Amino acid sequence: MPIPAANLYPPFNIVRLSHVEFAVTDLAASRAFYVDTLGLQVTDEDASTIYLRAMEERGHHCIILSKAEEARARYLSFKVYAEEDLDKAHDWFKAQGKPAEWVERPHQGRTLSTVDNFGAPIEFYFKMERLEPIHQKYALYHGVKPLRIDHFNCFSPDVDASVAFYNEIGFRVTEYTEDEETGKLWAAWTHRKGGVHDIAFTNGRGPRLHHTAFWVPTPLNIIDLCDLMATTGYVSNIERGPGRHGISNAFFLYIIDPDGHRIEIYCSDYQTVDPDLEPIKWDLKDPQRQTLWGAPAPKSWFEHGSLFADVEPEEPLLKAQPIIAP
Amino acid sequence: MPIPAANLYPPFNIVRLSHVEFAVTDLAASRAFYVDTLGLQVTDEDASTIYLRAMEERGHHCIILSKAEEARARYLSFKVYAEEDLDKAHDWFKAQGKPAEWVERPHQGRTLSTVDNFGAPIEFYFKMERLEPIHQKYALYHGVKPLRIDHFNCFSPDVDASVAFYNEIGFRVTEYTEDEETGKLWAAWTHRKGGVHDIAFTNGRGPRLHHTAFWVPTPLNIIDLCDLMATTGYVSNIERGPGRHGISNAFFLYIIDPDGHRIEIYCSDYQTVDPDLEPIKWDLKDPQRQTLWGAPAPKSWFEHGSLFADVEPEEPLLKAQPIIAP
Amino acid sequence: MPIPAANLYPPFNIVRLSHVEFAVTDLAASRAFYVDTLGLQVTDEDASTIYLRAMEERGHHCIILSKAEEARARYLSFKVYAEEDLDKAHDWFKAQGKPAEWVERPHQGRTLSTVDNFGAPIEFYFKMERLEPIHQKYALYHGVKPLRIDHFNCFSPDVDASVAFYNEIGFRVTEYTEDEETGKLWAAWTHRKGGVHDIAFTNGRGPRLHHTAFWVPTPLNIIDLCDLMATTGYVSNIERGPGRHGISNAFFLYIIDPDGHRIEIYCSDYQTVDPDLEPIKWDLKDPQRQTLWGAPAPKSWFEHGSLFADVEPEEPLLKAQPIIAP
Amino acid sequence: MPIPAANLYPPFNIVRLSHVEFAVTDLAASRAFYVDTLGLQVTDEDASTIYLRAMEERGHHCIILSKAEEARARYLSFKVYAEEDLDKAHDWFKAQGKPAEWVERPHQGRTLSTVDNFGAPIEFYFKMERLEPIHQKYALYHGVKPLRIDHFNCFSPDVDASVAFYNEIGFRVTEYTEDEETGKLWAAWTHRKGGVHDIAFTNGRGPRLHHTAFWVPTPLNIIDLCDLMATTGYVSNIERGPGRHGISNAFFLYIIDPDGHRIEIYCSDYQTVDPDLEPIKWDLKDPQRQTLWGAPAPKSWFEHGSLFADVEPEEPLLKAQPIIAP
Repeated sequence: MPIPAANLYPPFNIVRLSHVEFAVTDLAASRAFYVDTLGLQVTDEDASTIYLRAMEERGHHCIILSKAEEARARYLSFKVYAEEDLDKAHDWFKAQGKPAEWVERPHQGRTLSTVDNFGAPIEFYFKMERLEPIHQKYALYHGVKPLRIDHFNCFSPDVDASVAFYNEIGFRVTEYTEDEETGKLWAAWTHRKGGVHDIAFTNGRGPRLHHTAFWVPTPLNIIDLCDLMATTGYVSNIERGPGRHGISNAFFLYIIDPDGHRIEIYCSDYQTVDPDLEPIKWDLKDPQRQTLWGAPAPKSWFEHGSLFADVEPEEPLLKAQPIIAP
Repeated sequence: MPIPAANLYPPFNIVRLSHVEFAVTDLAASRAFYVDTLGLQVTDEDASTIYLRAMEERGHHCIILSKAEEARARYLSFKVYAEEDLDKAHDWFKAQGKPAEWVERPHQGRTLSTVDNFGAPIEFYFKMERLEPIHQKYALYHGVKPLRIDHFNCFSPDVDASVAFYNEIGFRVTEYTEDEETGKLWAAWTHRKGGVHDIAFTNGRGPRLHHTAFWVPTPLNIIDLCDLMATTGYVSNIERGPGRHGISNAFFLYIIDPDGHRIEIYCSDYQTVDPDLEPIKWDLKDPQRQTLWGAPAPKSWFEHGSLFADVEPEEPLLKAQPIIAP
Repeated sequence: MPIPAANLYPPFNIVRLSHVEFAVTDLAASRAFYVDTLGLQVTDEDASTIYLRAMEERGHHCIILSKAEEARARYLSFKVYAEEDLDKAHDWFKAQGKPAEWVERPHQGRTLSTVDNFGAPIEFYFKMERLEPIHQKYALYHGVKPLRIDHFNCFSPDVDASVAFYNEIGFRVTEYTEDEETGKLWAAWTHRKGGVHDIAFTNGRGPRLHHTAFWVPTPLNIIDLCDLMATTGYVSNIERGPGRHGISNAFFLYIIDPDGHRIEIYCSDYQTVDPDLEPIKWDLKDPQRQTLWGAPAPKSWFEHGSLFADVEPEEPLLKAQPIIAP
Repeated sequence: MPIPAANLYPPFNIVRLSHVEFAVTDLAASRAFYVDTLGLQVTDEDASTIYLRAMEERGHHCIILSKAEEARARYLSFKVYAEEDLDKAHDWFKAQGKPAEWVERPHQGRTLSTVDNFGAPIEFYFKMERLEPIHQKYALYHGVKPLRIDHFNCFSPDVDASVAFYNEIGFRVTEYTEDEETGKLWAAWTHRKGGVHDIAFTNGRGPRLHHTAFWVPTPLNIIDLCDLMATTGYVSNIERGPGRHGISNAFFLYIIDPDGHRIEIYCSDYQTVDPDLEPIKWDLKDPQRQTLWGAPAPKSWFEHGSLFADVEPEEPLLKAQPIIAP
């Protein structure tokens, strides 16, 4: 199935990915990880919930940690351009036969809760409480110096179907991996905000959340985080990297939070604002698409992901896992 | 005069700044500067003209150097979203009583030539010849490893008027400096593509082009360029920096090409895609707005700029120059 | 006067510079500067004295801050190779007619107190309390991440005389600036430990201490410190830089502590262990010797220094200051 | 067997490791690797031999590549302090019953050829042709920007015996790995020039040369080299890393030249000039000693090494390989 052409006039205008809510089983352990180690800033917290933002963000939160019995990704949230886009989104999802409910979310304006084509819970809002800039309060920077949330990456049981759905609502494919034998997509990266992705999909039992990524200033911040984690009890939470992805060209590190939610630390992708940007195609058999420098990824990286709340993942269409290292 | 609210629904959709054409008096000297020293890639050249792109760009050119008797900035060019935006732009400029002509530009599709509110020559196109990606051809990287054109900065005789004009066609203010005594804008930074600026304006005899900026991966690339220029005969072409701007938070270096066109090398600003991003206000008397670390800028930086072709600059409304170093 | 040849067999074996004691007028202000901002580690402190070490040092201290009425540099201290070198040093200074007394210094073994050729107070010891390594305790790193003390730089009223004296006790010249008109040395850099310098001398009213330098991992740590100081009330304590010295090739930043003691943050010089390393000569009229990239140093940098305890500085032999910026 | 105390007064004074001669089977392929890719500078070459130096070195060569039928490490060479040290070395090796011959080496003064305790060919000289400084000729820097040769690492069949031998001639242990069960050394790092090592030994079939290391300015240069190698046909020559060693704290990358000679690119170890520096002990079972961040090394890294000319390696005393990854 060919990559669909960019939908230049989608039914409503999504600005960017915004935030994720993680159900976590030990709030103190999560706080130690996200706040003390990664360096995210607490913007609100009580006994059951912590709101976090990264250093250059002025919206109130990019991650919500909420205490629960079981670790889950509760929903992925996106910011739309204007209030009318929220109503257009509501009507569009209704027309697709999807649930589309207005929900209350602290620190946000009107929020639409719905699901994507595979039932993954997604939300949309247009207005969030705005905070004072802190990007020049350098005394607050620590850990990996996270600047902003960058993207979500999800396992999808049928990447072609996921791309078709998200393309229709305006996400544009920047890079993709094709399985030469079947002609099916193995993985695809799609964006709204002008980087390589706001959300990506990779073949696997899904929907599940593979990881959530944060942008940092330079590769040296990632090296600093490795040093810090390796010497503060988090060495086994370093899953993969640092390295360079062939796809996206990003310098990456994958780490695992205390509940198994995977976080990517990321920098160095490229600008994609041109609506006529040609997607870059990679061959599934090219190992450099995953790691430009050749080092294999661990098995866990291909298999593990966070379950979404209230949706049972399906087995993927493409079976053979392209595992290139044990 | 207050900063105008973002115009969420401008008359046509500008994607980003695209390129500038510099009239230069010695093409070989310019080539040595832009190609051999900065590291831009030649995409086309003949005896009178050189086309250049930066490493992650797939459009054919971000700078055109053309042989001439006198150094000038010929025009600033912007990419629009779709072909119909070009026609809308044509009609809008006509309606403003501006010249609006279709011109032939090699390697581009239909191109509209017009002027801004102070007569600065600007152009719009929607389609440019696309080239193969080279951002992972690391053997080609040299000099400062320029990734992409980032912004233009212009002297304006009336920054409020410039902001009003560009705001109407969709540019959103991210930061600005106000003269407390008169309540007038001293300078403003406005964007389309989601960084701090595609085009900025600063009070001064204008219209003139203050500088054109390129984005690089990290501050270390800027340090490398200083070392290279300082030891290859270009030490006097280093005008200011490296340093950190308070405004935009960017790590910067200003250099002067053989004809006096000023180039900024730049990294580390922040993402501004939220349409409700609040502009950051700076006080004209705060020296950290210019250099966060306190070092003053040289006098030339406040006075020198490139003349635009076919337009005589006017004296600025605000007279006193905020010169903070001789 | 020519640079003296390296004295391959000096009368006693000095390993490296070790530490400086600063008399400071406000211990809390000094602590905020050296500990909270620069990131040095406290190894001992009481109401009148603070001992500090840098991250890779295992000796107990590289700076001692002691409360006093007036800011002074109390003495410069050097580590010798073995206990017998201490006795040889004692005898050598005695033979030169210098005071040579055994003094008690906390956390150190036997310590010799004496003066150099211009009366600057210097000390020698062979054994200091050794501490556990902390260079891999990455959670402790903050501020500029100082790794080790690197060198002292002193104003000397007669640089030729200073070089002759220190050369005799084994310091080897790596780079120097000569005044072409008089044939006299303007400045010289001399080492024991295999970098460009342990101690340098520059023409000026002296003896006075121009600065004490710390080594950091990369230029980015220096940029981080600029950002931190600029946003925590220390912007006026940034005196010069960042930049690249022509001499030594070091990437530098000069900052001023609350009492006016100057600290250099420094990285990127080169290895000089070869005893036959040829000193590099610079012309006093070459501005790139000071700043490879051409930016001038401020006037204060040429004039200000810390007085040593108990010695009145003399006027320099060479009068004209090579001031290249106001 | 305990680590021997530092021998403060060795029989002759070795300054540092100096260079290695590699027998290579395809001189053009080696040149492409060392010159075009790594960025070493050619100082002399003819049809059978290429001499190379790194950017801050003023000695004529740090690697000699010589055309041969079979790949070998011909000898490891060390610089001594003064000519009399060469004669002392000659007499000392003779007294040990070792061969000790004066050999002709182009661009060097008198050169002593001998062997170490396991027959590895080693050489000593005191004078080498000196070249003009190029460390500020920034236009010459490319590839990984190698600054200087840093160390050799050898497989030894009995690390205790190697340490005893090299300790006697003045090499001081900085870090070591002990096999808790047998009390024997698994590996040891020893230095002369004030870094973590000039030569290290690791248990294995030996003597063989495990690798030769080059020092670079920052971890970003290593990342640049990975990008370059990965996109110029050398991806399979990247063997291990980048990463941080627990031992030495160095940021490392291991690459394999066209003949299988292993090169390490390295930065960020620490200064070790204090003669009373306490060696750091690591447990053989601590995986962080090899990679602080936990990533395992490939099997080849534990097994492959360069044969020395004219010496058959012996099986190691300790049999079990601490292989932690396939």
